[in-house]
Amino acid sequence: MPPVNRQLRLQSRPKGLLAPGDLQLTESPLPELKDGQVLAKVKYLSIDPTMRVWMATDSYLPAVAIGEVMRAFGFAEIVETRHPDYKKGDRVTGLTGLQDYVVLDASAKQSFQKMPKIPFVSDTVFVGLFGLSGLAAFFGMEIAQAKKGETLVVSAAAGATGSIAGQIGKIHGCRVVGIAGSDEKCAWLTKDLGFDAAVNYKLPDWKEKLAAATPNGIDIDFENVGGDIMRAVLNRMNLHGRVILCGLISGYTKDEPGLASFVTVLEKRLRVQGFILVDYVSRFMEAATQLGQWKMFGKLKDRETIVEGLEKAPDAINMLFTGGNTGKLIVKV
Amino acid sequence: MPPVNRQLRLQSRPKGLLAPGDLQLTESPLPELKDGQVLAKVKYLSIDPTMRVWMATDSYLPAVAIGEVMRAFGFAEIVETRHPDYKKGDRVTGLTGLQDYVVLDASAKQSFQKMPKIPFVSDTVFVGLFGLSGLAAFFGMEIAQAKKGETLVVSAAAGATGSIAGQIGKIHGCRVVGIAGSDEKCAWLTKDLGFDAAVNYKLPDWKEKLAAATPNGIDIDFENVGGDIMRAVLNRMNLHGRVILCGLISGYTKDEPGLASFVTVLEKRLRVQGFILVDYVSRFMEAATQLGQWKMFGKLKDRETIVEGLEKAPDAINMLFTGGNTGKLIVKV
Repeated sequence: MPPVNRQLRLQSRPKGLLAPGDLQLTESPLPELKDGQVLAKVKYLSIDPTMRVWMATDSYLPAVAIGEVMRAFGFAEIVETRHPDYKKGDRVTGLTGLQDYVVLDASAKQSFQKMPKIPFVSDTVFVGLFGLSGLAAFFGMEIAQAKKGETLVVSAAAGATGSIAGQIGKIHGCRVVGIAGSDEKCAWLTKDLGFDAAVNYKLPDWKEKLAAATPNGIDIDFENVGGDIMRAVLNRMNLHGRVILCGLISGYTKDEPGLASFVTVLEKRLRVQGFILVDYVSRFMEAATQLGQWKMFGKLKDRETIVEGLEKAPDAINMLFTGGNTGKLIVKV
Repeated sequence: MPPVNRQLRLQSRPKGLLAPGDLQLTESPLPELKDGQVLAKVKYLSIDPTMRVWMATDSYLPAVAIGEVMRAFGFAEIVETRHPDYKKGDRVTGLTGLQDYVVLDASAKQSFQKMPKIPFVSDTVFVGLFGLSGLAAFFGMEIAQAKKGETLVVSAAAGATGSIAGQIGKIHGCRVVGIAGSDEKCAWLTKDLGFDAAVNYKLPDWKEKLAAATPNGIDIDFENVGGDIMRAVLNRMNLHGRVILCGLISGYTKDEPGLASFVTVLEKRLRVQGFILVDYVSRFMEAATQLGQWKMFGKLKDRETIVEGLEKAPDAINMLFTGGNTGKLIVKV
């Protein structure tokens, strides 16, 4: 057992992008395990937009307190155990935090789930397709109740959640249009993932391109972004369309996030359904099983962007807001 | 038959409240009826917040064109007929417009519905409880699917729609809290209409009073107002609450109406359902029948504020935005 645990602790609440020092790398000795406790080595960390919210303010979870280890979802392997249900070598996912090692307590074990070893599949899948991003896509698309022939638009479509949500739309027989931030991402969506069209929102005429790509209007908005992009999508929505509000990433680094007009919602009789993955914890296994089947049969493709080193986690978080990643962004500890 | 028809025509699109001259009173001779046409004398005009939207911009209906007779819902009596289905003395409701007389065309008759004569009931009910406002309350509350014991908050609660929506909430066994703009209106809601509580949003501590009146949070927001009031209500919503988006009156006189944050919708997993009455035209009779039964059995009370004279209609429209009316605002032509 190494003598120290490196941890990224929240030192100050960021304004805009994370600044150096907002997350501070500290080292502390590993504690002596008590009965019922387990020590796990964190292997992979899921880097998610919602982390920026956790750093800033109370939301669906309380804000991370100043001085605390930054909250994060991760995949870890048990290296020492004083709990009968966990063996050395067992693998778990849960809120490990941004650190090398995490102590799991029996009383808190509901937050962690054991994961199987899947032949021919990288362990990163447990923080990617089978992690928060893939699961959010799964349950968000369940809420959407997409029907064959409907037009689905996905924002942040080349991101971890958007890329899976769009492919689930294709499985349901939708016309699927992605919005992403580069021509390369758009090409990935249409050529590799089977999206019907993809629009690069950094081009000046992107709204015209969105209109051209959605000749029958938009029935479902799988919304990950908010702001200008959401407004442009709402303007193309058909009457009685559905908006699955999964994320509002464009606002997370701003003072007044998610600001948009409810007038379009009213006039087009839209149904906007806010959605947070924590409500679905009891169904994660069911969802991962379905996602796994789709992947096995070639109906879902996932891509990962892997950043090496715990100390790079702050830069990785910022990448989410500057469009640096394609697919799932993971830190390898 | 008098020689002229007075009409209020849209002369300029208002900024903020209506200014003198935005609606111009003109006089024109009544046309000779053609076969299939009917002439009706407008008796009562329904003054509704949505009229301000119709004056400003295309929405769920096209904007009224400059120079056109201002669109309005009204109750009229047939005075001359060249259509076999309509007799002199028949009474109809529909989009009569702000004018003394309206010519109904057989080809457009779907916009008008014949109304019965109801003993002991004033004809104003056809533009009030059985008109757009009461019907909006009825169908909005149908969407809300209110359950016994839930907390319903209604904004613009002393208005024509809000006052009925709240009473329907009481019929369903909800705790009903109204938000209104004066102590007198609040007293009317609690003492006469049976609301459990009412909060005057013009008092500086109204948000604390709203919190005190909703000790178990808010399950349903029947939203008529938008802006600050909507934000305060959303902040008190329970997880998985429902927002029935019926109106956003606080924004109709502003440049950027209905601006609010979708972050609360996301984090509280709210369902926001936009709703426009025109979708329910085929069910108006069914709804009016139910509203009439409730009224007959004393479960619904309605109040009317009647302004006399077509030429007063512009002032009446402004009253909606300055809180001048309690209950249904009607112009008697």
